[in-house]
Amino acid sequence: MQVYNAPIRDMRFVLQELIGIGDYPEIPGLEEVTPDLADAILEESGKFCTEVLLPLNATGDEEGCVLENGVVRTPKGFKEAYKAFAESGWTAMASAPEWGGQGLPESINKLVEEMSCAANLSFGLYPGLTHGAYQAIVDHASEELKQTYLPKMVEGTWSGTMCLTEAHCGTDLGLLRTRAEPQDDGSYKITGSKIFISAGEHDLTENIIHLVLARLPDAPKGVKGISLFLVPKFLPNADGTPGQRNGVTCSGIEHKMGIKASATCQMSFDEATGWLVGEPHKGMRAMFTMMNSERLSVGVQGLGAAEAAYQGAVAYAKERLQGRSLAGAKHPDKPADPIIVHPDVRRMLMTMRANVEGCRALGGWVARNLDMMKHHPDPETRKEAEDFTALMTPIVKALFTDLGFETASIGMQVYGGHGFIRDHGMEQYVRDSRISMIYEGTNGVQALDLVGRKMPAHMGRYLRAFFHPALAEIDAAIDDDRLSDLVQPLSKAFGGLQLCTAEIAQKGLRDPEEAGAAATEYLRLFGLVALGVMWLRTAKVAHAALDGECDDPEFYKAKLVTAQFYMTRILPQAAGLVAAIRSGKSAMMALDEMAF
Amino acid sequence: MQVYNAPIRDMRFVLQELIGIGDYPEIPGLEEVTPDLADAILEESGKFCTEVLLPLNATGDEEGCVLENGVVRTPKGFKEAYKAFAESGWTAMASAPEWGGQGLPESINKLVEEMSCAANLSFGLYPGLTHGAYQAIVDHASEELKQTYLPKMVEGTWSGTMCLTEAHCGTDLGLLRTRAEPQDDGSYKITGSKIFISAGEHDLTENIIHLVLARLPDAPKGVKGISLFLVPKFLPNADGTPGQRNGVTCSGIEHKMGIKASATCQMSFDEATGWLVGEPHKGMRAMFTMMNSERLSVGVQGLGAAEAAYQGAVAYAKERLQGRSLAGAKHPDKPADPIIVHPDVRRMLMTMRANVEGCRALGGWVARNLDMMKHHPDPETRKEAEDFTALMTPIVKALFTDLGFETASIGMQVYGGHGFIRDHGMEQYVRDSRISMIYEGTNGVQALDLVGRKMPAHMGRYLRAFFHPALAEIDAAIDDDRLSDLVQPLSKAFGGLQLCTAEIAQKGLRDPEEAGAAATEYLRLFGLVALGVMWLRTAKVAHAALDGECDDPEFYKAKLVTAQFYMTRILPQAAGLVAAIRSGKSAMMALDEMAF
Repeated sequence: MQVYNAPIRDMRFVLQELIGIGDYPEIPGLEEVTPDLADAILEESGKFCTEVLLPLNATGDEEGCVLENGVVRTPKGFKEAYKAFAESGWTAMASAPEWGGQGLPESINKLVEEMSCAANLSFGLYPGLTHGAYQAIVDHASEELKQTYLPKMVEGTWSGTMCLTEAHCGTDLGLLRTRAEPQDDGSYKITGSKIFISAGEHDLTENIIHLVLARLPDAPKGVKGISLFLVPKFLPNADGTPGQRNGVTCSGIEHKMGIKASATCQMSFDEATGWLVGEPHKGMRAMFTMMNSERLSVGVQGLGAAEAAYQGAVAYAKERLQGRSLAGAKHPDKPADPIIVHPDVRRMLMTMRANVEGCRALGGWVARNLDMMKHHPDPETRKEAEDFTALMTPIVKALFTDLGFETASIGMQVYGGHGFIRDHGMEQYVRDSRISMIYEGTNGVQALDLVGRKMPAHMGRYLRAFFHPALAEIDAAIDDDRLSDLVQPLSKAFGGLQLCTAEIAQKGLRDPEEAGAAATEYLRLFGLVALGVMWLRTAKVAHAALDGECDDPEFYKAKLVTAQFYMTRILPQAAGLVAAIRSGKSAMMALDEMAF
Repeated sequence: MQVYNAPIRDMRFVLQELIGIGDYPEIPGLEEVTPDLADAILEESGKFCTEVLLPLNATGDEEGCVLENGVVRTPKGFKEAYKAFAESGWTAMASAPEWGGQGLPESINKLVEEMSCAANLSFGLYPGLTHGAYQAIVDHASEELKQTYLPKMVEGTWSGTMCLTEAHCGTDLGLLRTRAEPQDDGSYKITGSKIFISAGEHDLTENIIHLVLARLPDAPKGVKGISLFLVPKFLPNADGTPGQRNGVTCSGIEHKMGIKASATCQMSFDEATGWLVGEPHKGMRAMFTMMNSERLSVGVQGLGAAEAAYQGAVAYAKERLQGRSLAGAKHPDKPADPIIVHPDVRRMLMTMRANVEGCRALGGWVARNLDMMKHHPDPETRKEAEDFTALMTPIVKALFTDLGFETASIGMQVYGGHGFIRDHGMEQYVRDSRISMIYEGTNGVQALDLVGRKMPAHMGRYLRAFFHPALAEIDAAIDDDRLSDLVQPLSKAFGGLQLCTAEIAQKGLRDPEEAGAAATEYLRLFGLVALGVMWLRTAKVAHAALDGECDDPEFYKAKLVTAQFYMTRILPQAAGLVAAIRSGKSAMMALDEMAF
């Protein structure tokens, strides 16, 4: 049996103590976002996830989606759960009030997303994709398309997809072949095949709105000749109800390692009617709006899986009796001690805990910046927040999903053989979380985005959006005796990051393959340092709370211990990454293709 | 479609150039083991694995095992494949001639095991377990039991199992409850339930011989009261044919993450007739004979999965066209370059390659020692070989299986989205290999075995069996200019290992929890250094070959590049492990149980 209770206390800590949403009510557009409101939302969402979504997680995995005569049936209970989800307003939460949304900030939305992905990742994908499509339409579509589609998508009766990948091209979209023929009425006829389309067909909503990348007849070759089209499953009637069936069908669904309750569809577009979104040949830009939002959400999926695995592992480690504590029996009344007494089990639990809480904190920092770039009245602050978000998007995506999978696998390890069998549901977290390292751009692509685009952009301006506050955080702690154990390893890792940044920038100018060769290790190094900064900030907050009057000192003491664990047992990995990065591309690129 | 061709060239390198089996014909009992014989066996085994076992790997995973009315049906084709396997003599290869075996050395056997586990891990488990049971019977059972059971097990018509785990105890066997009542005729009635029994019931052989841990009526509590019994599924008739059905039945099979074609059974013993193997209450010792042999084999399973994943990844990386080389188009005639041109894909392939070839080399070193401890005429040499094997067994088990799973996951990543769907079979390697980190003692238990038993044993004598030859290898290379790039990082990592060894030994004496807290990172550090030693030795051999006349210089040049990759991109992880180990247990153990 899988267990999950939303970690409300820690989420509240991130929101209110770490990233400080206390000032939100002073910011135009966020006037209503009080701490009480945030609490109420977290509580409600947590309840819904535990009561409605969690029970469908293992059964959904067992049953999977079924395609019959072009219709995809989601597992038992998903339709009802989705209806309840939409009716409770969760699909509208992150959307703008003008389209029927609640306009809540990303700091809260991302935590709510974490909960649904922790309780049921397959389920969480359906509304998540709709929200990405919503965002691309808001930013790029005509007023008419907005009016027709957004309200239905916000209320959750219609859902959305992203149709990018074709069988021969995933990462390299320049190769795509789907074509769009302009019609006299201003619409287009879309023809082509797409694969790996999450939620391409299903039975949860009345209509499905596909955002499709395709080429116009006069399109230049490569990525500069790609346009974005909106293609609904049913063409809307004048009254807004779904009308005639459009020429888009699901020709197959994938059998996958995990997220089996999420329909991954092969889609055929056969002269399907669509409308241009944004300008001709500028489809990649419009799609990236969607993609960037999705990339952060995919990172949060990794975090969700890690949290669920952590809770499962803790429950088992307290209950399973094997052996005796090396420090002498802790529970002499029982035939053996629970395995949580063993250092190696502690190592696993503490690693999971440090990963989960660290990522949640870092995710909070990024989410606050998402809110600032959207709402802050000062253009300079908005700009800085945008830089920071652009920089951190690939890091959050790749780091959180790598750690998500690693953490899920550790959780399974805590169970021993009982983790490998299906009964406890631990192996499902491993299988489900694995996809997050791949989709929305593989983690290798994220690393290339970091070193190839984000690092050199505007003479390193994006980098400064992280380096300046990180250095300030370290400098402010350097004379605090209580923090010196934490600052020391962090300073060292930060120095390594600075050094590698300078070297990669320099070498990469001369030889882009040098940047490519460093990319993945550099992203991990950057991520580890960013987590370290959050742990340092966490420790400061914890000390301050313990110095004053606080209701739950144990919570803050645990934060201090976990910060120490992170700095002394995990962050030292930075040294190896620095050495690997600095060794350059030579051994990596020396072999001839034929030697493999 | 999965691909696998046995890496014969590399295996021959390990056998004949790296660990040097050229002297085997001079050793009593190994007179016939010539290089030509070794080659012929590798070729034959490779052919069988590719032609017979590989095609059943994906179908076996899809179909799984089925339990109906107490009978387990293996997937289509397994029965025929097993018959062919036994008839070709593969079940007899590693067994002693006096029981019908071919008495071939472990250096060859382990490579043959690697092949079958690479081609079809589920299949490989069946004969693997039989051989473990064979070994325990050879070492501990009465002459009568040997005569009755061994010939049939060696020829493969009967198979074997290890029945240890019960629902409430896996690692802590002291808790086990299965009991054995002595009978007047010298036999015992065994009653109890076991879980996770691989090959506990199946349709591949005429009879199944269970080795069962149970307690005698007068047994002391804990592990010192456990005895080992032989319990056949069918009681043999006087003429050696399977006779009356014994009171042992399969009451359920597990639904698992992977190795679905391997039947994992719940077994019920209901006054089943059995015979004592070894002395009363000394069952753990007898079982450890079996377990140690199995642990090395499980390590080899990790290596096999890694090799198969590597081959799949290479094939795809050469064929899949996406993007252009950062150094300018490599295949301008094609719409895009194959992804093998990209540094990040190279990073993945080189990491996999370094893992696979490094583990094969280290496995070879251990296997040579297995052969020496059994066959060498000099007792001192036998003793040293035994020390080395005892020390390296937990390292091979945990390191190879950790790296096996990591490597399989990297292989899947090379495929992007195509790796997550079932069609290419890459995700199966991830699911299948995951169990190897758990069974035959979790990798955490291996780490405790290393720091808690092997490290302190005989005042560090086991350690010296590795440290002395490793240091000699490094010292002999230190003045060779061509090796200095390799020796430098290795010396540093070796120094870190020495330091940590001394500190753990010292701290562990005072506080065993300190040793426990260091265990997993220490094992990984040890493993990385051991791989480094093998890469240094490999580089020496490669230089020597290139200095002389050699037919395939490309092979040796690739070895030099991969050695450099290992030393500069992977081995630097040692620095972080050293720091983590030295930080001690405090952050790991500080939280109260209730704080989790």
